[in-house]
Amino acid sequence: MTPFEFLDYAGTAVFAISGALAAIHKRFDLFGILILAAVTAIGGGTLRDVLIGRTPVGWMQHIEYLYVIFGSAIFTILFRKYLVYLRRTLFLFDSIGLALFTIVGVELGIQNQLHPVICIMLGTMTAAFGGVIRDILSNEIPLIFHKEIYASISVVGGIMFYGLLTNGIEQQLSYMLSAVVIIILRILAVKYGWKLPIIA
Amino acid sequence: MTPFEFLDYAGTAVFAISGALAAIHKRFDLFGILILAAVTAIGGGTLRDVLIGRTPVGWMQHIEYLYVIFGSAIFTILFRKYLVYLRRTLFLFDSIGLALFTIVGVELGIQNQLHPVICIMLGTMTAAFGGVIRDILSNEIPLIFHKEIYASISVVGGIMFYGLLTNGIEQQLSYMLSAVVIIILRILAVKYGWKLPIIA
Amino acid sequence: MTPFEFLDYAGTAVFAISGALAAIHKRFDLFGILILAAVTAIGGGTLRDVLIGRTPVGWMQHIEYLYVIFGSAIFTILFRKYLVYLRRTLFLFDSIGLALFTIVGVELGIQNQLHPVICIMLGTMTAAFGGVIRDILSNEIPLIFHKEIYASISVVGGIMFYGLLTNGIEQQLSYMLSAVVIIILRILAVKYGWKLPIIA
Repeated sequence: MTPFEFLDYAGTAVFAISGALAAIHKRFDLFGILILAAVTAIGGGTLRDVLIGRTPVGWMQHIEYLYVIFGSAIFTILFRKYLVYLRRTLFLFDSIGLALFTIVGVELGIQNQLHPVICIMLGTMTAAFGGVIRDILSNEIPLIFHKEIYASISVVGGIMFYGLLTNGIEQQLSYMLSAVVIIILRILAVKYGWKLPIIA
Repeated sequence: MTPFEFLDYAGTAVFAISGALAAIHKRFDLFGILILAAVTAIGGGTLRDVLIGRTPVGWMQHIEYLYVIFGSAIFTILFRKYLVYLRRTLFLFDSIGLALFTIVGVELGIQNQLHPVICIMLGTMTAAFGGVIRDILSNEIPLIFHKEIYASISVVGGIMFYGLLTNGIEQQLSYMLSAVVIIILRILAVKYGWKLPIIA
Repeated sequence: MTPFEFLDYAGTAVFAISGALAAIHKRFDLFGILILAAVTAIGGGTLRDVLIGRTPVGWMQHIEYLYVIFGSAIFTILFRKYLVYLRRTLFLFDSIGLALFTIVGVELGIQNQLHPVICIMLGTMTAAFGGVIRDILSNEIPLIFHKEIYASISVVGGIMFYGLLTNGIEQQLSYMLSAVVIIILRILAVKYGWKLPIIA
């Protein structure tokens, strides 16, 4: 397992935990918990794949993501009372997930020779729309539409990654720089309560 | 019309009736009733087709499903006051639909040479996700996430069908055995009020 | 820019404004406003493209639609207090959008040699389902399922356009006649408060 794969699985796991926690909070049963964990973790990438015509969608060809997700959901059920002590760790890996999923999405756009704006959108879709589907299935207004600056950080990081990669910066370095910027912005955003303006 | 086709249409019809009833209950107009009947009956298969890249999706190539659906919706509107007397018949065909749609989904996964776990998921998606879309469009939390053991029976039946078919059991026999098990489990589940655990 | 392109962009813009207004009303932040403007304007066509397998979906290959949408969202934010004075103009272009999107959807169905009923459905999907996705993301029951005769006008116009085009009427003339009928029906529907029956 490469470091990238490890972080990718860790991000998937933390997204799945966030979905499982939302499902438990809504008193879903075991089936509902597994589904909500899955859509939160892979819903964004699935939407991306469907829109660009990359089918069967990614997780159907890499079964290990489902194992990570179902494992994370079971873990969440068993240790839900103790997850609060992992709050910082979970937050860190959630930020790593935000970074990696953004980068993966942008890169897929570039590989499919799509317009730069579309590439950035695919990055943000990959990183943030699993949470949108989670909220819709929980009958809630999507969190990223009105709280927290989350998707916007993905947009900024995506622009940066696109700019680096298409201007001759080496791939590994582009990954690292963009990921670090996204993670730091996310930490700052939560620490200082950054929000986008609401128009009223 | 083969017996299989008859049961497939009957299952489609009963799923459509369930959607139409939900729409009437929510005071949707005629257009809303037709749409909710359609998404309940073919939404699961449509999602499956989109995710595996089988487009144009199935019902676009077999127009007779739409006729069954629209006919069922009109039937529901005309006889909505008497449907309560058909409760047992509707329940039986709903269970048959659960069984057939599960089997059709698993089989499509096998034909597309997907991983066994994905095949089972495609079966459950086909059988149970039309109802999820129905609930989302009605602004309700999806029923199968917190009430009744419904999707889980599809999972059990899907595993059984996959096991039989890939271990050399003749196709017709695999169909029949799995369908009978799903229908019996469903009847028992409702009779004895089986539920999945809710974690709190 | 041809007159058709101008009207297509104008329709897109007005649909985007309707989405942005709904988002502002729900107190979404800037990111939420942009997303809701986009799904309202291109959600119906995106769903259509995904279901018929026309991927990457349309707006990924015609970036100018996104510029129109984002421009319209910013315009809406800046001039939201004055939009009430544009009520008649917005209503007119909304009706033009309904007409053009219906026609575009039906024509794509014909090009893909789909069944007449499917072609009509694709027209209505293109014209009316962006609004459905907008309502779902706002946690509302879709408006077109219970209020106003909107999608039904698209169905009528779609049938007419299909009939004209497949019976040898020249393309430009078929466009114009169908569009005029849809726009007039829409104006009459709002003026006289036409509604579909609700079954109770």
